[in-house]
Amino acid sequence: MGSDATAPVTVESINPKVLKCEYAVRGEIVTHAQRLQQQLQTNPGSLPFDEIIYCNIGNPQSLGQQPITFFREVLALSDHPALLEKPETSILFSSDSIARAQQILSSIPGKATGAYSHSQGIKGLRDAIAEGIAARDGFPANADDIFLTDGASPGVHNMMQLLLRSESDGILCPIPQYPLYSASIALHGGTLVPYYLDEATGWGLEISELKKQLEDARSKGITVRALVVINPGNPTGQVLAEENQKQIVEFCKNEGLVLLADEVYQENIYVDDKKFNSFKKIARSMGYGEEDLPLVSYQSISKGYYGECGKRGGYMEVTGFSSSVREQIYKVASVNLCSNISGQILASLVMNPPKLGDASYESYVAERDGILKSLARRAKALEDALNNLEGVTCNKAEGAMYLFPQVRLPEKAIEAAKEAKKAPDAFYALSLLESTGVVVVPGSGFGQVPGTYHFRCTILPQEDKIPAIISRLTAFHESFLNKYRD
Amino acid sequence: MGSDATAPVTVESINPKVLKCEYAVRGEIVTHAQRLQQQLQTNPGSLPFDEIIYCNIGNPQSLGQQPITFFREVLALSDHPALLEKPETSILFSSDSIARAQQILSSIPGKATGAYSHSQGIKGLRDAIAEGIAARDGFPANADDIFLTDGASPGVHNMMQLLLRSESDGILCPIPQYPLYSASIALHGGTLVPYYLDEATGWGLEISELKKQLEDARSKGITVRALVVINPGNPTGQVLAEENQKQIVEFCKNEGLVLLADEVYQENIYVDDKKFNSFKKIARSMGYGEEDLPLVSYQSISKGYYGECGKRGGYMEVTGFSSSVREQIYKVASVNLCSNISGQILASLVMNPPKLGDASYESYVAERDGILKSLARRAKALEDALNNLEGVTCNKAEGAMYLFPQVRLPEKAIEAAKEAKKAPDAFYALSLLESTGVVVVPGSGFGQVPGTYHFRCTILPQEDKIPAIISRLTAFHESFLNKYRD
Repeated sequence: MGSDATAPVTVESINPKVLKCEYAVRGEIVTHAQRLQQQLQTNPGSLPFDEIIYCNIGNPQSLGQQPITFFREVLALSDHPALLEKPETSILFSSDSIARAQQILSSIPGKATGAYSHSQGIKGLRDAIAEGIAARDGFPANADDIFLTDGASPGVHNMMQLLLRSESDGILCPIPQYPLYSASIALHGGTLVPYYLDEATGWGLEISELKKQLEDARSKGITVRALVVINPGNPTGQVLAEENQKQIVEFCKNEGLVLLADEVYQENIYVDDKKFNSFKKIARSMGYGEEDLPLVSYQSISKGYYGECGKRGGYMEVTGFSSSVREQIYKVASVNLCSNISGQILASLVMNPPKLGDASYESYVAERDGILKSLARRAKALEDALNNLEGVTCNKAEGAMYLFPQVRLPEKAIEAAKEAKKAPDAFYALSLLESTGVVVVPGSGFGQVPGTYHFRCTILPQEDKIPAIISRLTAFHESFLNKYRD
Repeated sequence: MGSDATAPVTVESINPKVLKCEYAVRGEIVTHAQRLQQQLQTNPGSLPFDEIIYCNIGNPQSLGQQPITFFREVLALSDHPALLEKPETSILFSSDSIARAQQILSSIPGKATGAYSHSQGIKGLRDAIAEGIAARDGFPANADDIFLTDGASPGVHNMMQLLLRSESDGILCPIPQYPLYSASIALHGGTLVPYYLDEATGWGLEISELKKQLEDARSKGITVRALVVINPGNPTGQVLAEENQKQIVEFCKNEGLVLLADEVYQENIYVDDKKFNSFKKIARSMGYGEEDLPLVSYQSISKGYYGECGKRGGYMEVTGFSSSVREQIYKVASVNLCSNISGQILASLVMNPPKLGDASYESYVAERDGILKSLARRAKALEDALNNLEGVTCNKAEGAMYLFPQVRLPEKAIEAAKEAKKAPDAFYALSLLESTGVVVVPGSGFGQVPGTYHFRCTILPQEDKIPAIISRLTAFHESFLNKYRD
């Protein structure tokens, strides 16, 4: 069916908020990569590379990362509880996975993993998550504050839906940002109020910049309702210092903003001198309690060392709202009934993994640390390689799963992009894809200082592939510069 | 934290669309039931019943329905593929579940059930679903038209978001309706255009009523964009006749409406003289192709004989839209990355269950038919019991999982409700809960002809509980009438 202005639904007659929404992580370049992948299958040898390497998205298991055995054991037993009555199960499964599955099942009414749960998620699992948060932070957490979600995204949408009444409501978002935020703000009809991270100081978050942008937005009649902070940063990989976090909390408190803390990379820290602190811990350590600050912390099972993207689990911890507003948050969650139970179970496991003395503890630690140490090595190798490229500078990935190098493009390349009707960084990324099979996301998908060009590249390809990626990237970059050199 | 007008977020300062949204299936009465359940735990014997029986929601496994063994076997093996390499697995699992898991895993790139999939879902699973649809309908189906979703609800939201630009856009919805539709329309800022089902003819859907309501809405300046049809009906349980469906297709075609076909109860048919026909089959059998009619069919793993609510799987089959509109639907799906893979796998299984000759076939059929036949008996027993109550009439549940009896309330009861600041049917349902522990949803949550009162009651309690429910319901109803008799 072609475009037809008389059809019941045309692009001209759909909700303009949908048209406005963009999500570069799965945008044009990925569609093109999928086409090339099909071409490789139907016509091998027709391209200058053998495989497409998807560095566009934080999807570790798609690139060969193995799931944590204990987590999958518990999941399989919970999915098919009849196994727990068979003698062979003790041969196939670790003893603590069996015990954990039994404990989880006993916390589910009727042991029914196929039933809708409470709209916030199964109470016993929320208890386990609250315990995990309390152990992490050293401050109490409450199961009633946990809303289990299908990944972190639905929780972000839930809050945007709650806060945004019209274009006159704004959300302060970092630039560069993870485009879920710009997409969700567009879909809910609000205004993204940008604050720029300072690339020169390792993507520093300056309070003066927050203040300037807040005042600027207010002077335009925008009611700024919340501040989004992504820590560790996506796509920028920085880890905030405790002092900086305190300033941010103080800023939100003084300005009457909700603090939306994207903390999904809390386990992904690769440098010894940085440590993850949740914003809730920071706020409580400053003496701020429930009454003082509306704060939402997002966590996801898709990230960390677990990388269980396909299981779609996560939670938001909602504190500092009145009970009447909480009822509204609950109501919206209840329209979708509940998040998937397998994801709920995994969320409880990542916040309460095996402990010293458990049968799986040693193998669990070996799997976990193997993944995290390898990610740190990959981050360093790619960062060094990028910094060795002419005209490219790349901040350290202190955390998260990405590098976000700046590429200084020659004028001729920018003109060639203009002729091809592409943004210059999209033109670069597309050329990279067509030469090497490596898929990265242009910086314009995340936002960047005008006139600068970046791309986001994950650190997720398996370690044995990194040298080849580096040599292909290096060769491509040299030839690209040579082609367009001013 | 109490209500505080100076707080950053108050009920007065949130998005009014959120305030307007209502979802009675998990509303006030369920919250009250949960309180009573806690009271029973902490203070047994303090209430005139021993347990709460949740008849408010189509959640079969929460009331003891067992999952289909084959489905759970495949799921457990897909969650923990290492099992496939162990010799004990052939003792614990059926041979066809092992083969099916291997086939499914081989269709997933890298066998990674922990990776985000394509935004529409894993291609191999969509192929299986398209085959299942084609076998069901006798007309071809295309994997590219399938969007796998976390239950049916996100697919409904996706289409409402696409179609609704403002309050001037309307959606024709049946009254009574499943409140997901009213909730989603409210959240997306559109207008619900009601059409009334005719209780006197077994909740008949009259084209004259559709026309009348459409014209009435148009005369008020509403652009009606789509027609929602729920078949089998929720909460009303009727199954549409083929002739009626043809009229509906013709109506949508002539009036330029998208047909949103909620077909999640397609396997739940309890009478011999009715048969489920998908609207796509009807449209194709009338000679209408892809060009002629935008049509979305919703299916869910939560219903049928499988009842896998907690796994959150489902799909929408999207046909008859231009490629440019399809791109927009895809884009919105991609913002949330993908639906959960376990739910995707289950959706492929329910559309392609074991076949004659497969090792599990006989036990599968026994489980399936055992559930469906029992549901039919339960529907009949409850329907008869309701029709035996003074002043109550109840149409047959030809399909779905609900009865929706009309209760003629005495004037004094209506006055007592007014005094208690409750809708009369909510007052009745609350009294029923407090006397018997049985949770039903007041008809006002679904919509009803003004001045009539109904409630929705699922047919899902296990069969051995039905006699007790009937006797408690009967005793309650008599004493309620005696108390308020005019």
